[in-house]
Order: sequence, then C-alpha cells, then structure tokens
Amino acid sequence: MKRRDFITNAGLGGVAAASALATPALAQERIEIAMVSTWPRDFPGLGTGAQRFAQSVTDASDGRMQVTYYAAGERVGAFDSFDEVASGNAQMYHAADYYWKGKHPAWAYFTTVPFGLTNTEIDSWMKWMGGQELHDELAGQFDLKCLPCGNTGTQWGGWFNKAINSVDDLKGLKMRTPGLGGDVLAKLGVSPVSLPGGQIYENLISGALDAAEWVGPWNDEAMKFYEAARYYYYPGIHEPGAQLSVGMNASFWGGLKESDQLLLKHLTASENANMMAEYNAKNGEALVRLQQDHGVEIREFSDELYLAFGRATDEVFAEVTGHSELAQRVHESFLNARKTVGDYLVLNDVAYINKRSKVLSQ
Amino acid sequence: MKRRDFITNAGLGGVAAASALATPALAQERIEIAMVSTWPRDFPGLGTGAQRFAQSVTDASDGRMQVTYYAAGERVGAFDSFDEVASGNAQMYHAADYYWKGKHPAWAYFTTVPFGLTNTEIDSWMKWMGGQELHDELAGQFDLKCLPCGNTGTQWGGWFNKAINSVDDLKGLKMRTPGLGGDVLAKLGVSPVSLPGGQIYENLISGALDAAEWVGPWNDEAMKFYEAARYYYYPGIHEPGAQLSVGMNASFWGGLKESDQLLLKHLTASENANMMAEYNAKNGEALVRLQQDHGVEIREFSDELYLAFGRATDEVFAEVTGHSELAQRVHESFLNARKTVGDYLVLNDVAYINKRSKVLSQ
Repeated sequence: MKRRDFITNAGLGGVAAASALATPALAQERIEIAMVSTWPRDFPGLGTGAQRFAQSVTDASDGRMQVTYYAAGERVGAFDSFDEVASGNAQMYHAADYYWKGKHPAWAYFTTVPFGLTNTEIDSWMKWMGGQELHDELAGQFDLKCLPCGNTGTQWGGWFNKAINSVDDLKGLKMRTPGLGGDVLAKLGVSPVSLPGGQIYENLISGALDAAEWVGPWNDEAMKFYEAARYYYYPGIHEPGAQLSVGMNASFWGGLKESDQLLLKHLTASENANMMAEYNAKNGEALVRLQQDHGVEIREFSDELYLAFGRATDEVFAEVTGHSELAQRVHESFLNARKTVGDYLVLNDVAYINKRSKVLSQ
Repeated sequence: MKRRDFITNAGLGGVAAASALATPALAQERIEIAMVSTWPRDFPGLGTGAQRFAQSVTDASDGRMQVTYYAAGERVGAFDSFDEVASGNAQMYHAADYYWKGKHPAWAYFTTVPFGLTNTEIDSWMKWMGGQELHDELAGQFDLKCLPCGNTGTQWGGWFNKAINSVDDLKGLKMRTPGLGGDVLAKLGVSPVSLPGGQIYENLISGALDAAEWVGPWNDEAMKFYEAARYYYYPGIHEPGAQLSVGMNASFWGGLKESDQLLLKHLTASENANMMAEYNAKNGEALVRLQQDHGVEIREFSDELYLAFGRATDEVFAEVTGHSELAQRVHESFLNARKTVGDYLVLNDVAYINKRSKVLSQ
C-alpha cells in the first residue's frame, strides 16, 4: 500500500490526517497510534520503559505522532497484543517476542534463549550481524515489523529453599520457570510451572512452589521473594539477556514516510539502551539491599550444573531447529554471533572486569 | 535566551529560519547546523559513526534540521573543535571529550580513564547514576551541552615487539599511548609518546617506537600494525570503554524547542549504542583474521602487571582529584558507579559468559 493511500484510508488503519484538506501542504499530518503491551501499568523496568518509549514518540515528534498507551488488560489481555497489532486493530505493541513462540519457535531467539546472547551480544547481532533482517523475515510472515526496545540483562537463576549443589538437588522441584528455560530444566527432573509474576509470591510462601525465577534483584526485591526463599542463585542460563520489542502493524509501518520510520527506529534504539542501563544501575543497588537488609544468601551455580544445563539445552535446540528452515537459519545466525562476539568479549569486557576486580579487592 | 529571540537572531547563532515570515505558522523553521569533528573523514567506527549521527539528524527530522558535517581539518583542526563550538562558530562537535582535559581534568571521566568503566557501566552511570548531570555541570562552565554518542568498547593493551611478562619488561620502552593511560605507564618506566594514528605505523616499522596502542582489532588491523609488531596484549587498562560525545553550543541548545532537544537526545543515544554494537561485531571478526591470516600472537597481561597498573593509576587519580572540588565529585560519582554496577556485572554478564565459555569449550 502506498503512503498516500494509507493516509486516505486513515479511518481503517488508525492513522488520522487531522484537517489535512484544509491546511497547506507544509502542515504535518497527525498520526494516532494505539499501543498495547504485555506489562502491568507502571511495572518497574519493563512497563515503565515501554511507557517512556510511548511518551518519547509523542514528545520527540512535537505531538505530531500521538501514542495512546494501554497496559496489559486495559485494552486487550497481555497475550492478545500480537493479534491486536497483526490485525491492525492497534498499531504497536511492547512485548517480549518469545511470548509468540507457539506461533513460530524462532520468535524466542529475538527475546532470549537458554545459553544465548547477553545484551551486548544481541545488540551486535541485531544491528550488524543479520539479526534485524531475520527478525524482519519472521515478523513479515505475521504482518508485523519489530524493533528492539529494551533489555533486562542477564536474569538470575532463581530463588530456592535449599542449596542446589548437583543435578540430583533439582529433581522433583516444582519451579516457576516458563519458556525454553523451563523446557531445559524439565529435562533435568524439574516440574516447570508457568505463572504470572503476581502469583509467584503466594505460591512460594504456601509451599505450592519449591522454587521460582522471575527477573533479577531489582524486580525480585519488589516481589519480596526474600520472605519465602533464602537462596538466590546466579548466573541464570535461561534468559541471559531478554530483549523486548516494539511490534508494529506492517501496513501501518509501510504507510509511514521514511523520516517517521527513522524516527521510530532511533526512539526504540534509545529506549533499548536506556532500559538496560536502568536495570544494571538498579539491580546493582537492589542486590546490596537484598544481602545486607534481607539476609539473602547468594550462591553461584556449580560448573557441574552448568554442564548439565548445557547438555539439556542442546536437546531443546534440536527440537526448535527441527521446526522449519527459517528456525534453522535463525539458530545458526544466532550461534555465529554468540561465537564471534562472545569469544571476543571473553578477552575484553570480561577479562578486563575479572582482572580489575582482582586488583580492587587487594 | 528565549527560543523566539534565538530564532530571530538566526544569522548570529547559526540557526536559519528559511522563509519563516512568508509561510503559515504551522510550517517548520529550518535549522542549519555546522558539525565539526576530531576524526578523519570515513575513519571506521569513530568517523563513520559521527557521520551516521549527522545524517540521522537531517533524515529523522525530514530535513527540518540540516547538518553539514566537517571531518577533522575540513573546517578547523581536530583539536580546535572545542573552541569552534564553545564560541558559537559551529553548533556541534563529535569528539572524545578527554581531548579537553587540559582545560579541566574532569573531562577525561566522560570519555574514559584507566581502571575506569566499561561501556555497560558508563551507560548506567551517565543515564541513571548522576553522570549526565555532572557532564552538564562541567560542560556548562564552557558554554557547552554534551550528550554521549558512541563507544569503542574496551581497548587493547597494545602492540609489542617482545613479550611483556613483568614491570621490568616495560622499563625504557618508547610507546605510543596518550592521555592518562600514558601517565600511568610513565610511572612504570615507559616513555609515553602522543602521536596521531596515521604516524604510528611508520614509527613502529622504523623502530622509533618500541610499542603502540591504538584502539582494538578492527581499527588496528586496518593500520597493519601486525607487520611491525608480533605480540598483541589484552585487556588494556588505559581505555576500558571510550565514550564519544556530541558537544553543542549551549545557546544553540537552549534555543531549541523541547521536542528538538529530545530528538537530539534520542538520536545521540541511538548512535551511542549502534557504534558500540558495530565495534563488538567487527572487532570479533577482525581478531580472528589477525590470528589466522596474519600470525599475530595474542597475550594476556599478567596479574602482576595489572597490580602494578593499579598502583600507578591510584597515583594518577590523586593528581586529578587534587585539581578542584568538581574533579573530586566527578571522581567519586564515577567510582560509585564502578563499584555498584561493576560488582553486579561480576555476578551476571561476566559470570555467565565465563561459565558459558567453559561449557561450550567441552
């Protein structure tokens, strides 16, 4: 559809050309955007970041693009966001694209998969190593165009009521851990449970759950999980850098003039980095409070456990890549980024921080 | 100065209101921006990133803001960029702000200092832990407003013609290494030399230099340093995450409407992340070529050397913080970010990548 057609059909597509006929050619069309999301209103990090992005579109366009933001449940339920935007009922969503892995397993890679990419790595993949092009190919099959917009960083391994020293200690645990990470743990004897964040605390307290993972110190502290479990394990393998997305209706996107597409590209990229910076700043501060004020004991997963996680992840990957040629290509491109950038970071950011820590602790 | 005054005085301030009187109120003023930089034209990463940012301002504003970009020497010399913008002759520069440390030593912290912050850490500091506010305070003293716009990541320790196993091996070396990193090495017996990038190769080949550091694999490969030195050391302590800046004339900035300030804030933030992602993607690929095609031997600085670097850095910091109350405050805020975020990353990105590498190498 051409841009002019789209503007003319404003009533159908959600784009309104306010008094377009009465004003001079130089005047700007006003574009109205309904944005749904998968997060509760004001949810720290994920929700507040999505809301900041929505506001930034209105503000940086000087009100020419007007975004009305709907938190989960305010217009449609969280997991109806995909259909709401793909169908053109709304123009945008903010979500974790792995929620759509039931529609195609390759969606998971554009958020995070077990043993996958950190924030730094996925940013290189998306921007410079073919990730965005693959995301476009996948999203195009569903009449969507997606852009990265936020990241939680490496998530924590979870809250446990007992020490987890070996694979045997995992067997039989009922644990809240959704997605492919849950599939990995299931292969090691865990019974994974998928529960919304708001129901985790009561189930941990009651003993209905033995363990749970949510996000990281900043979000987990707000949930008061420290009242229900003593041991907090790092580093998680299940979500090493969960990237969030703004998904847009493809006809809406295609109808925008190029400068507005660029504006949205840069505004999503800005919030993508901003949310990550916020998580790292606030996680660091929250972790200190969890240990000092709430007596949480942090523990590192052993190398033995990591090896077992790695073997189980290979089995899960084999199931995913068997789905389709596209899933296979996404997987291989992703692994190439993990090898190239990951091997590099081992010698740089990682080596530097390891060595700096040794010196500073002298 | 109010915005209206500024637009009226367009001829003085470099902002042109093209045919503002003849067109309706809804028409947009056209803003012309001269942008100087400290990089040669098309210099990979630093220069191409600055040029991308300049183009993004023109494109994302649909031509309403017109940036004319001048590489180093095309309008003024690289190091005259500061005065050109502070005086209002030009509106913007793209530079590494540590070039201005002769004017105030605190400028160094907003690019990078020895034993300082990685890209991930400085992003949290700038956006969420008081860094931007301190940058504003410092820049305001010089009639500037600065925003982060790019990062090289952790730079490499340098090219050497012999193995560097101990501090004794450093003594007497004539090495190209500018800035505070050079001051640190000087305390360990190195004779630091400050040379533009283009003169390093010939001096290494001729033996006038014993060693040199420049940036990292991607940029260093293009310089063919592998023809002149065999050993390539990591991780560097001198520039653990060199952040670049867009500096703007304060009156120009103050005269912009709020939506244009926001637009520039988001466009700089977008390129800030984009350049970092490019460096990590291309450094990773270049490092493989350096080792496989050019026989470069990569070596890790020993813990003994790192301890010596750390002690020498403390001496350099004492000189910097003695300069002024502002330098002291910047230093303390910076160290707080290093402790809070750095300690956190040790348990997350760093721990995860370390453990993942072990599993993948099995």
